[in-house]
Amino acid sequence: MGIRVAVAGASGYAGGELLRLIAGHPEFDLVAATAHSQAGQPVTAVHPQLAGLDLVFGATDPATLADADLVFLALPHGQSATLAAALPETVRVVDLGADHRLHDADAWARYYGGPHAGAWTYGLPELPGQRAAIAAATRVASTGCYAVATTLALAPLIAAGAVFPADVVVVAASGTSGAGRAAKAHLLGSEVMGDLSPYKVGAHQHVPEIKQATGATSLSFTPVLAPMPRGILATVTAVPTGDADPRDVLAQAYADAPFVHLLPEGAWPHTAATAGANSCHLQAAVDVDAGRVIVVSAIDNLGKGAAGQAVQNANLMLGLPETTGLSVYGVAP
Amino acid sequence: MGIRVAVAGASGYAGGELLRLIAGHPEFDLVAATAHSQAGQPVTAVHPQLAGLDLVFGATDPATLADADLVFLALPHGQSATLAAALPETVRVVDLGADHRLHDADAWARYYGGPHAGAWTYGLPELPGQRAAIAAATRVASTGCYAVATTLALAPLIAAGAVFPADVVVVAASGTSGAGRAAKAHLLGSEVMGDLSPYKVGAHQHVPEIKQATGATSLSFTPVLAPMPRGILATVTAVPTGDADPRDVLAQAYADAPFVHLLPEGAWPHTAATAGANSCHLQAAVDVDAGRVIVVSAIDNLGKGAAGQAVQNANLMLGLPETTGLSVYGVAP
Amino acid sequence: MGIRVAVAGASGYAGGELLRLIAGHPEFDLVAATAHSQAGQPVTAVHPQLAGLDLVFGATDPATLADADLVFLALPHGQSATLAAALPETVRVVDLGADHRLHDADAWARYYGGPHAGAWTYGLPELPGQRAAIAAATRVASTGCYAVATTLALAPLIAAGAVFPADVVVVAASGTSGAGRAAKAHLLGSEVMGDLSPYKVGAHQHVPEIKQATGATSLSFTPVLAPMPRGILATVTAVPTGDADPRDVLAQAYADAPFVHLLPEGAWPHTAATAGANSCHLQAAVDVDAGRVIVVSAIDNLGKGAAGQAVQNANLMLGLPETTGLSVYGVAP
Amino acid sequence: MGIRVAVAGASGYAGGELLRLIAGHPEFDLVAATAHSQAGQPVTAVHPQLAGLDLVFGATDPATLADADLVFLALPHGQSATLAAALPETVRVVDLGADHRLHDADAWARYYGGPHAGAWTYGLPELPGQRAAIAAATRVASTGCYAVATTLALAPLIAAGAVFPADVVVVAASGTSGAGRAAKAHLLGSEVMGDLSPYKVGAHQHVPEIKQATGATSLSFTPVLAPMPRGILATVTAVPTGDADPRDVLAQAYADAPFVHLLPEGAWPHTAATAGANSCHLQAAVDVDAGRVIVVSAIDNLGKGAAGQAVQNANLMLGLPETTGLSVYGVAP
Repeated sequence: MGIRVAVAGASGYAGGELLRLIAGHPEFDLVAATAHSQAGQPVTAVHPQLAGLDLVFGATDPATLADADLVFLALPHGQSATLAAALPETVRVVDLGADHRLHDADAWARYYGGPHAGAWTYGLPELPGQRAAIAAATRVASTGCYAVATTLALAPLIAAGAVFPADVVVVAASGTSGAGRAAKAHLLGSEVMGDLSPYKVGAHQHVPEIKQATGATSLSFTPVLAPMPRGILATVTAVPTGDADPRDVLAQAYADAPFVHLLPEGAWPHTAATAGANSCHLQAAVDVDAGRVIVVSAIDNLGKGAAGQAVQNANLMLGLPETTGLSVYGVAP
Repeated sequence: MGIRVAVAGASGYAGGELLRLIAGHPEFDLVAATAHSQAGQPVTAVHPQLAGLDLVFGATDPATLADADLVFLALPHGQSATLAAALPETVRVVDLGADHRLHDADAWARYYGGPHAGAWTYGLPELPGQRAAIAAATRVASTGCYAVATTLALAPLIAAGAVFPADVVVVAASGTSGAGRAAKAHLLGSEVMGDLSPYKVGAHQHVPEIKQATGATSLSFTPVLAPMPRGILATVTAVPTGDADPRDVLAQAYADAPFVHLLPEGAWPHTAATAGANSCHLQAAVDVDAGRVIVVSAIDNLGKGAAGQAVQNANLMLGLPETTGLSVYGVAP
Repeated sequence: MGIRVAVAGASGYAGGELLRLIAGHPEFDLVAATAHSQAGQPVTAVHPQLAGLDLVFGATDPATLADADLVFLALPHGQSATLAAALPETVRVVDLGADHRLHDADAWARYYGGPHAGAWTYGLPELPGQRAAIAAATRVASTGCYAVATTLALAPLIAAGAVFPADVVVVAASGTSGAGRAAKAHLLGSEVMGDLSPYKVGAHQHVPEIKQATGATSLSFTPVLAPMPRGILATVTAVPTGDADPRDVLAQAYADAPFVHLLPEGAWPHTAATAGANSCHLQAAVDVDAGRVIVVSAIDNLGKGAAGQAVQNANLMLGLPETTGLSVYGVAP
Repeated sequence: MGIRVAVAGASGYAGGELLRLIAGHPEFDLVAATAHSQAGQPVTAVHPQLAGLDLVFGATDPATLADADLVFLALPHGQSATLAAALPETVRVVDLGADHRLHDADAWARYYGGPHAGAWTYGLPELPGQRAAIAAATRVASTGCYAVATTLALAPLIAAGAVFPADVVVVAASGTSGAGRAAKAHLLGSEVMGDLSPYKVGAHQHVPEIKQATGATSLSFTPVLAPMPRGILATVTAVPTGDADPRDVLAQAYADAPFVHLLPEGAWPHTAATAGANSCHLQAAVDVDAGRVIVVSAIDNLGKGAAGQAVQNANLMLGLPETTGLSVYGVAP
């Protein structure tokens, strides 16, 4: 008899990936998957990759979920708080949405609007002390996809005093699944194949989360939509404080992190190498001409950037080995 | 102490996928991976998606492999026979190459050239009686990727007498990993993205294998290279003998096959839904105008078309449940 | 002072390509572009590739169009007839929709529904006698994209008696722009990249048009959606009547056709090689095993399959050289 | 009788695009196309998109080229100087290679190695005064693809004193054709589709050219390989000196530049919108959090980044309108 797990908002891309991971998890029993407009439909009508999974979407209401030991919330930003408040404290909750990530209510209001639901334990286990905090929590706010990619590259360097926390410049490109499953003309295959384009330039809602998680005090963040279904490549540059080798700092920070791989010198991350996995690949160098530190990270935005990360948090909350049911190996080519 | 498994020819795409599956298999211990020109290099230098796998390619010689309980051969066509002959009978062997698939030495000579190595037990467990044959064998010739996709769609219809074995027309499109990892100009990303093109039209080497496996007596087979890394979509048409519903025939044939999914009526296969999995998705209809039966199948050419299939065969040979270490769920989107 | 040209339904993909071709046509003055929901918006808000074209979408009504010398209709199927009837006879009209292609009112009713608007001169100049018919017409029904690809491959063989008109099997894969610009979830980039999937299997609405244009009496036609923005690759197979070389038949049929290229023996068509051009590339062979004739054609579905073809028809109607303002060279890689 | 034009190194991607543009140019007669290993082969064997162009590659020697009025050199870096030196002064030469771009011999030696051939007139017509210089020259060094994208975004801001020339950070992603046509494993379609990866991080050879062309004194430049055949998206950030609106500066700089389009406020560049064209699309904003100026530019690396740019330079050298034979409209979707 396994741990009873439910997913709210299971019809989106992160939701589908959660279902795949839960179905393959040796300790989890998938007891419910809810959806809004697709309630009543078979899960496989929305997620054909799950052919063989015999389950029908339920409606997203607390009654459907309260019976589970652990609930994943994969709802649009702003919809988690109400639902979470209606669940018993005994039910562990991992929220993949942004609702409970920010400590700063003003930043929430400015970037998301509406009342702030308050912060939960921040679900990025690779941050110092965070594994223990997550293990002790019953409510965890899982990290956003761009924040995972940027924070794993940058946070150790700022923490070690190796780079200045101001003048951080990040350009991060994401596959299209990061933009969700809603049918929008600018996300049609005809539009995105063969195309690169930036969006929300100069004011992306992930900035306050990244600053909070990394300790950066000034952050220029430009997201780019890339012609691939999955993956984030974040190019993070900052000004070094001295001569510390950024590779040494990263190697030390992630010595015991099973999902973060500092690549051998000279090898640079490929997003494709992380597809379907919960891995983050990192490499760093110092720019010959400008003297800036450049760290590049690659993740699967639905893996370590969403569903994989959420399962990793759940494992910790439940006292399971962090890696249970997760792969470090990407599906490539 | 697990089953000791080795892979010969592990630097190619099928080899890389085998390593990924073996590393995640609960009963297998990966003891050796050999390669020709990359011998001595870390596996991750060739397969960055396996970051975290601490293994160096060995040379492809019998001494390296003889110590394993089971060896997968993922060598270029024509190179398996000599190596296999040098391995002790006690070592189980699954050959992903074409060398031991054909019963007809003439067909081998005509399509591949050189001496025929003789046929092994044919490794497509979903064919009638084949699970038992594979379980009893120590040498299994795993099915070719196009042959898997076509045979699963067609063989039950011919066997049931629902379609005539002559006048079978197949057009099958494959992702580029099916063409291998050798650096060739026509396989460059710049060439294949945005492009569809047929190849080996009128004389593809998989024709004799497909005829042997399906019972077709006349087969027009046109392969097409498609702009995606993985996946085969086979469109198989044949002339019905009567009014049998092809869906009924397929449903009955695969009632107990865990990896073959006949989709609900009206849903057609998507190759993306099988990516990274060992699944085959099927659908069938009768053409309103022409009266032909049309069956469409989708697989991952590296999954059910190569490495997944090979592991499924190995599981059967070793007395393990057929599904051990294999996923039925695709990594999509 | 050039020829005054207008486009009705210019906000779709074929409409955008028409605008690009008209803007570069040495004899055309673009005087109006109409759209339904985008009326009042700048053309470049919908078609960013036309940056520099200073034009606002008008509403799609006869008053806007009646002032032109020639009007292209790029409207959804079923909407051309009413609009065309409201235009003066002196205005030449090229319809890219299906409304006026079919002679058979029953076939129209069966595949499209609604009343049949009656057939116009069929706009495929490469059919015998059709150049003269188009030159003499003031109303031309331009060919559908799948019909162009299939007819150019097949019609000469049937006309020459080289293949039987029954038992024709076609599998044709199209880029996503063929499915239009409406925002639908199954056409999202996340869904189509890495994916091949058939649709409308067994009953595609292009079947009656293809039969009419080619003389085929029985046609199995399976369309497939391919992960690329543009291009159609049609694999056409039929049973030969004798020993005629299909290449000879095609070479003779297109000796004077500037846009149809029979490739050198052994070279097979690539859709990418036709991107942005009005070309059709062809190759043929006889299948060694099955004895069927296989002809493969490649076009750009928005070029020779839609906008390019329409401009070619317009050139003929206006007494201009057929090739004016059109390219035979593709934009590749 | 047109202007006699030849292309040396016509078998690569930039060479193929040059042939396409020359074949469609109303004033040019293509008299020769040379290639190294493909000499003697039909041009269409290498460039199937040029089907219909009846030309055979010649050998790359001065005798073949000396007879032309204008020669384009599309050779690997380091091979232009010797060939150019052997051509009569009366033959105008546009070099698409890097050999004659840099004024600084040390920078050449450091990034390219070997002796420096000396600088020619720099072929970026949109720089102040450069149109006249190009028109007066018989030898022009056409700009590199990354340099075009970065310089058009940045140079006017530095020239106007709107941003500081130090602390410039650029992340620029390119389609795969920028990496050339040589068959390399890491450029296979299987590797690049679905993948983003940086390369030459911290020390790219385009840095000195970009510094020279823009006036930047410190430049962090990270190139990324993107899964598309064509296109460059450059994200350029710098520190503003005051409150000048970067859009005003760009609007004024390019008021008379037919190929550079500052997009309407809020619209950001798409590489796909420039495919096949000689356009550059620009947009700028000031980052809310970091206060940096962000300018994003999109070009077709083979168009405004190579062959289109070269034809634009040739037009100026020959006294033709700058836009002759070039399109401002992209082939999209």
